[in-house]
Amino acid sequence: MGNGRWKTVRENQTLRAQVPLVHCITNYVTVNDVANAILACGGSPIMADDIAEAADIAAVSSALVINIGTLNARTVASMLSAGAAANAKGVPVVLDPVGAGASALRNDAVRRLLEAVRFAAIRGNLSEISHLAGLSVSTRGVDSSEADSGNDAVSVARAAARRYGCVVAVTGAVDVITDGARVARVENGVPEMSRVTGTGCMLSGVIGAYVGANRDVLPAVVAAVASMGIAGELSLERHGGAGTGSFHIGILDALSKITDETIEKRGRITYEEEH
Amino acid sequence: MGNGRWKTVRENQTLRAQVPLVHCITNYVTVNDVANAILACGGSPIMADDIAEAADIAAVSSALVINIGTLNARTVASMLSAGAAANAKGVPVVLDPVGAGASALRNDAVRRLLEAVRFAAIRGNLSEISHLAGLSVSTRGVDSSEADSGNDAVSVARAAARRYGCVVAVTGAVDVITDGARVARVENGVPEMSRVTGTGCMLSGVIGAYVGANRDVLPAVVAAVASMGIAGELSLERHGGAGTGSFHIGILDALSKITDETIEKRGRITYEEEH
Amino acid sequence: MGNGRWKTVRENQTLRAQVPLVHCITNYVTVNDVANAILACGGSPIMADDIAEAADIAAVSSALVINIGTLNARTVASMLSAGAAANAKGVPVVLDPVGAGASALRNDAVRRLLEAVRFAAIRGNLSEISHLAGLSVSTRGVDSSEADSGNDAVSVARAAARRYGCVVAVTGAVDVITDGARVARVENGVPEMSRVTGTGCMLSGVIGAYVGANRDVLPAVVAAVASMGIAGELSLERHGGAGTGSFHIGILDALSKITDETIEKRGRITYEEEH
Repeated sequence: MGNGRWKTVRENQTLRAQVPLVHCITNYVTVNDVANAILACGGSPIMADDIAEAADIAAVSSALVINIGTLNARTVASMLSAGAAANAKGVPVVLDPVGAGASALRNDAVRRLLEAVRFAAIRGNLSEISHLAGLSVSTRGVDSSEADSGNDAVSVARAAARRYGCVVAVTGAVDVITDGARVARVENGVPEMSRVTGTGCMLSGVIGAYVGANRDVLPAVVAAVASMGIAGELSLERHGGAGTGSFHIGILDALSKITDETIEKRGRITYEEEH
Repeated sequence: MGNGRWKTVRENQTLRAQVPLVHCITNYVTVNDVANAILACGGSPIMADDIAEAADIAAVSSALVINIGTLNARTVASMLSAGAAANAKGVPVVLDPVGAGASALRNDAVRRLLEAVRFAAIRGNLSEISHLAGLSVSTRGVDSSEADSGNDAVSVARAAARRYGCVVAVTGAVDVITDGARVARVENGVPEMSRVTGTGCMLSGVIGAYVGANRDVLPAVVAAVASMGIAGELSLERHGGAGTGSFHIGILDALSKITDETIEKRGRITYEEEH
Repeated sequence: MGNGRWKTVRENQTLRAQVPLVHCITNYVTVNDVANAILACGGSPIMADDIAEAADIAAVSSALVINIGTLNARTVASMLSAGAAANAKGVPVVLDPVGAGASALRNDAVRRLLEAVRFAAIRGNLSEISHLAGLSVSTRGVDSSEADSGNDAVSVARAAARRYGCVVAVTGAVDVITDGARVARVENGVPEMSRVTGTGCMLSGVIGAYVGANRDVLPAVVAAVASMGIAGELSLERHGGAGTGSFHIGILDALSKITDETIEKRGRITYEEEH
């Protein structure tokens, strides 16, 4: 047995009861979906990226989500400012290192963020987390690279979690969530989710909502990851034949109706830990 | 009786006939929905926020909508420039003071805008308009605060309308629209609208379209507010059980089909005025 | 007969097989739809507009799409940088000159882009392409102006194609695509598409995906234009009565399912060339 409970129990109920304010500094491509995903799962999103208010907003929020999808010099400064304010107030911070490994700008921003800010959770695909873990990586664009399939998701996630002292989620065909010792695997989700932009960003926003409402970070992230995967499954069941537009809307529909019972019933989650 | 007609009659028909060009300087979170809401109700949106063209575009538009949802130093300058150009040409200007009261940056921007620009209409929630009216306010994020429910929407709206010499709409469970003397209450809408990001922003865009096509501002704003509420009701009737994604799309569907007859039939509007 | 094949044959199949990386520097109004449209037709979008990475990303992409919808000084510099990098690597570049003719800022940006960057394809409405061709134009906002209907789409498109040495698509009731000599007309599409913001931007993104995967630019653009028109028709057939929200989602649904067979069966494409 591990050190205390870490399986998901009623993280969603707690989230819906608390309605955590989730401050997002995120990309302009998927920002609307991120806000709607946070609302759907029970949180209250606020997007604010100007340096003159980023710290103020972060300090009064329940969680801060930093997503570098369309970063620029102006917003990276705001991310650092908001991250420092969140750390000072004990507000948990989530990082989505979109495209880490894909350009010097992104690599530099990620390095600076990881040096200056303590994160509660980091979520990315295998390419991105491999880059963070310091492993060799061949990134093509912002989607996970086939070339990285040689890296094992568990070892990559664990290496990153230990390096940064936080929970790391590597999402892909199977999602791996770890704090460096304990490991959960989530096998929910459908490949069609990669044909809708922003399912990863939405998940990072949802993780922000879950960790903003639940103190125990690891089960909160597991619940968030499972929720998103289940939402994809439910949408595909309902809209499978219709196309990617309806499938996209159906993910938000499903997220807005998911409960802890849904996660318990449909979650394909396995837990293990080091002995 | 008051001074002339001020109940809604055929504001939507006029709007659809004129196809007013509505220049929006708005936030990047909900901008797509704002554009589609303006198109749905019969207007033609143009989003342009660079200081080098904001005044040029505003000067040839039928209305200007200023929304500070994701303001920054660059866009506030453009808002001031566009506002001045609109005022000079007699183009009506609408303000959506998103998150007023939530940060010093927002408070300062709102103060500068209200000092420099004459607005035809201002729309916000009770927290935001209370801040504008100079009343004490406890804002949490960009959503209306429970702590403000002590302030009466009518008195807050009236105070703001008198202070700024324009029509003010306070939207909430009951929407209040006033020019400082005459007051309309709109009881359309459903609570589920707060679970979709941007319904307030969309309404502000729709108000821009209505005041861009109709000279009489008060009934134009009432028609816009009622339209949005009715669109929410119609969408909930159609998509209620499906979730927030479908509900969101259904609001745009309904907006695109609303006519003055719909407003007349479904509008729950009550009018009163000071004697 | 002309110089080799130029009718569409299996451009979509090639696109879906290659999954071209399409780098977009585009406006924040419709960027989510552009990304989802590129995914729907088989490409992989990446949005990156910071000067510090625009060239790096463009250089490793299969195509670059430049859309000036919400341009500003910062992004115009990135467009020029990315365009130069794409040209140096032989990556095809697509221009969507949104609102060309509507402001000095846009006219200046378009002039600088056309001087500095070699484009593979340019897509716009009649107002915009008339402006590029140096013809007199009366633009109102970002939508095509009735006042321009006097200009013949074929002569405007041909003039622009010859001036810039690339394929030009003028989209409207009938779409015209030409390389200056050969001309294709596409009569797919429905007027309702103008009631959804971003169908033009989405098409420009889809053109990026098609030219990123197919060497022969003219048939690639024709296939893209026909795909978008057919997607509008299919969505209207399915969602016609529902409203513009559902119609919008249905366009993405249809795009995600379109194949070369769909284009062959439903495409209303006529070809001609100079003798």
